[in-house]
Amino acid sequence: MIIKKDAFIHHVFFWLKDAKSKEDLIKLIDGLKKLSKVPVIKDFHIGKPAGTNRNVIDNTWSVSWLLLFENADDQQMYQADPIHLKFIEECLHLWKSVVVYDTINY
Amino acid sequence: MIIKKDAFIHHVFFWLKDAKSKEDLIKLIDGLKKLSKVPVIKDFHIGKPAGTNRNVIDNTWSVSWLLLFENADDQQMYQADPIHLKFIEECLHLWKSVVVYDTINY
Repeated sequence: MIIKKDAFIHHVFFWLKDAKSKEDLIKLIDGLKKLSKVPVIKDFHIGKPAGTNRNVIDNTWSVSWLLLFENADDQQMYQADPIHLKFIEECLHLWKSVVVYDTINY
Repeated sequence: MIIKKDAFIHHVFFWLKDAKSKEDLIKLIDGLKKLSKVPVIKDFHIGKPAGTNRNVIDNTWSVSWLLLFENADDQQMYQADPIHLKFIEECLHLWKSVVVYDTINY
């Protein structure tokens, strides 16, 4: 097992305002790399659509951001961390929409 | 790092037909536990909504299914694995919709 059973998984999908802008894409990825320095983050993964294409697959987003936290409290701390607030301030204008999935073990 | 940089991440969200049926929920979770035996799966996580509630959070689904694969080929093998085909056959009637996000490293 790589992911701990009691981990808090936070998966975010970003749709850029200008999906064709390589510059905006780089800005968002750079912003996420800075954001990855929030101390409570156990692991992160910055993703792009994998190239799969079936009717159940959503591949319309530009960037995914997967975070593993030790527990729900750490995720709360992440939300309030100054690095996170700075990321939102600097990058919010880049995306038109964002969807977040927070999951814990059944 | 827990998740390898070149991992293939497969994240599925299920909306049950009968979201209030504890029985159907257990059937789906049991099905996923059997499905986790597909040899190419590096790690899996069966999740429920974490109880967070902001406007960007989608917490309307019943079960999440996060898989880590070594690479895209392994994910292809998973799709065609007899255990996976049996899972679909046995559990397809339980959900009304499913959304899949496949992500690889930028």
